[in-house]
Amino acid sequence: MSAADHSAQYQAFQQLGLKLDMSRGKPSPEQLDLSNSLMDALDTYKAADGTDARNYGGTIGLPEVRALFAELLDVPAAQVVVDSSSSLSLMHDVIMYSLLNGVPGHAPWVQNPVTFLCPVPGYDRHFAICEARGIKMINIPMNADGPDMDLVEKLVAEDASIKGMWIVPKYSNPGGVVFSDQVVARLAAMKTAAPDFRLMWDDAYRFHHLGEKKLAVASILAACAKAGNPDRAIVFASSSKVSWAGSGVAALAASPANVAWWTRHAGIRSIGPDKINQLRHVRFLKDLPTVEALMEQHRQLLKPKFDAVLAQFQALLGDVPGVSWTHPEGGYFIDLITPDGAAKRTVALAKEAGITLTPAGAAFPYGLDPKDRHIRIAPSFPSLEEINKAAQGIALSLRLALAA
Amino acid sequence: MSAADHSAQYQAFQQLGLKLDMSRGKPSPEQLDLSNSLMDALDTYKAADGTDARNYGGTIGLPEVRALFAELLDVPAAQVVVDSSSSLSLMHDVIMYSLLNGVPGHAPWVQNPVTFLCPVPGYDRHFAICEARGIKMINIPMNADGPDMDLVEKLVAEDASIKGMWIVPKYSNPGGVVFSDQVVARLAAMKTAAPDFRLMWDDAYRFHHLGEKKLAVASILAACAKAGNPDRAIVFASSSKVSWAGSGVAALAASPANVAWWTRHAGIRSIGPDKINQLRHVRFLKDLPTVEALMEQHRQLLKPKFDAVLAQFQALLGDVPGVSWTHPEGGYFIDLITPDGAAKRTVALAKEAGITLTPAGAAFPYGLDPKDRHIRIAPSFPSLEEINKAAQGIALSLRLALAA
Repeated sequence: MSAADHSAQYQAFQQLGLKLDMSRGKPSPEQLDLSNSLMDALDTYKAADGTDARNYGGTIGLPEVRALFAELLDVPAAQVVVDSSSSLSLMHDVIMYSLLNGVPGHAPWVQNPVTFLCPVPGYDRHFAICEARGIKMINIPMNADGPDMDLVEKLVAEDASIKGMWIVPKYSNPGGVVFSDQVVARLAAMKTAAPDFRLMWDDAYRFHHLGEKKLAVASILAACAKAGNPDRAIVFASSSKVSWAGSGVAALAASPANVAWWTRHAGIRSIGPDKINQLRHVRFLKDLPTVEALMEQHRQLLKPKFDAVLAQFQALLGDVPGVSWTHPEGGYFIDLITPDGAAKRTVALAKEAGITLTPAGAAFPYGLDPKDRHIRIAPSFPSLEEINKAAQGIALSLRLALAA
Repeated sequence: MSAADHSAQYQAFQQLGLKLDMSRGKPSPEQLDLSNSLMDALDTYKAADGTDARNYGGTIGLPEVRALFAELLDVPAAQVVVDSSSSLSLMHDVIMYSLLNGVPGHAPWVQNPVTFLCPVPGYDRHFAICEARGIKMINIPMNADGPDMDLVEKLVAEDASIKGMWIVPKYSNPGGVVFSDQVVARLAAMKTAAPDFRLMWDDAYRFHHLGEKKLAVASILAACAKAGNPDRAIVFASSSKVSWAGSGVAALAASPANVAWWTRHAGIRSIGPDKINQLRHVRFLKDLPTVEALMEQHRQLLKPKFDAVLAQFQALLGDVPGVSWTHPEGGYFIDLITPDGAAKRTVALAKEAGITLTPAGAAFPYGLDPKDRHIRIAPSFPSLEEINKAAQGIALSLRLALAA
């Protein structure tokens, strides 16, 4: 096809006057509807231990909600804290406490330059925390089974300023990568120059399968304990994309020393989380089988949207050299990979055609995709019909960007 | 009465085998019951601006909950942020952001020693934040109309390390002090050596009257704006002791520059607060008259408990030289003031008689009451009958401490 043809197709699409937002991994209204009975779930104000959930207190979370997350995350309840609605907040606060106070037995990070390793492409909000709080970031290429471990091992062994690493171990944002057992074992066992190194293990998509098969990732807490580094990993999870995105409950799982440390610092910050919302979630989510059944309903809503994007891309981009995209088995994103230098232009063209995408580069520290190649596609929120149109528009935008 | 008599009375009391906790200012179950219809208040998931309250987003809070707190706090809605359940968390985070990032236009506090002024006796959780995050504290004596302003003005004018001051402007914890208009004006206008000085204005008891008369304190934001220091004060409030202590909504009110600064930093920390709980509170609390009517119901439950303590103290301690106590017109506490060196011993004796009090000294930075004179009495949680007994036991404990 000629450049003129590409332009004509794009212009015809632009004439549709669409207004679609695919910038964030937000659940759709239909997905949120799946949890509407959450509002009727509360049958008592009393927790199992007699605590009045309406009152102050309980920094570590109610026993029954800790037990629920222990079952969901496959860790002992004693190693689980359940807090308020946002796991991102828990990650942020772990970093704030580490910067100003230090992790157990170590000096505050803020006394010296701090560096984090960032597998890329990755989650923009992780990187935003580092950037906002003065933590330098180093890009780590992501392979099919996790980050480039040869590079990771080399860097952490020689640079004591490297205090942490961001990890989304399953259906990673945005690449959909599922970490292999070997990568998990190497992360747990590697020698780090910094004795207070932390893996920020964001288990955001643990139950968020798109395929028939429920893929599993090895337990990082067990691997760290086995390797003699029990305090290395802090696991984060939430019910945000299980129940309601803004009104869920968030959990942290870690070694007993890390849990005690967290609880001490969180107890300075507040007189306890919203325990009514915790009780409500215990009643609604019940147990692992109930959560898995709910996630299957989410899958039924999400899978056709992902399939639509993949089909449009195959039809419109399948013959374009240098263009590829991921086929995720779970999570919330497709990573569209363009030839060098075409991502920003594609996103701009899509915008002019009425489709708002995550800014090109957002999946990289400082918003800088070194080769300008990655576009994060978030198919969850719009309707199936809109998704079909949007994927078409994105593909036409990319073809025009390449033809120009 | 002889020392032997005191001892006999105390021992008789001890025989009752009570087990009462008066250590914290927690609402009673009957107070929490006043807001049980909060759970049925939600009639829609849609905010007035069309936002789906179940989904991500909205760092600054829903428009209608900002409007509600604007009415409650008598500030423009544009200057109000509503976040999650704990105003203490908002105070904590303001300090964390100031330490690591600095307030608008200024360097991070953490680069140099930081000092806060602390009117005493004051709120132990304020002081715990400073202690945990490495902020030095200086005691400021509290007068009947607010802190000793001559001393405050002198210190802030000469010491640029003084970056902030804790304030509970109305029915202060624990002294029940109500700030005069003149004190508010002087705090707003005083010259500070630090250009990035902040008043941490914890308006915790704005609606928490015990008397018939609803006392008012002058607006600090208006006073600061008038004095040419618009960014000096940050006001904090919450519905914790209006609706439910653990599941309320918290608000911050400040200058436009401070609100923008807060929103930017809070947006790094989370993808938005629990907006469902915000909507629920808008429906339940409605407006200022509704809140005031609810607070009148709280007052009906609290007033007899305060009166019982005051009556017991008058009966049992009225003739003891050097003993006094506050007669608060609002708030959650009575400050029992002993002769020098008797507070710790009294709290220990009360403990042995089955009454848990806030540790003596807790109302002072580092837990150190220089003259060991203050005991914070929290009459809200136990039943009226228990309060009567407890006040009796505390009085007997003090008399025995003085007789020994």
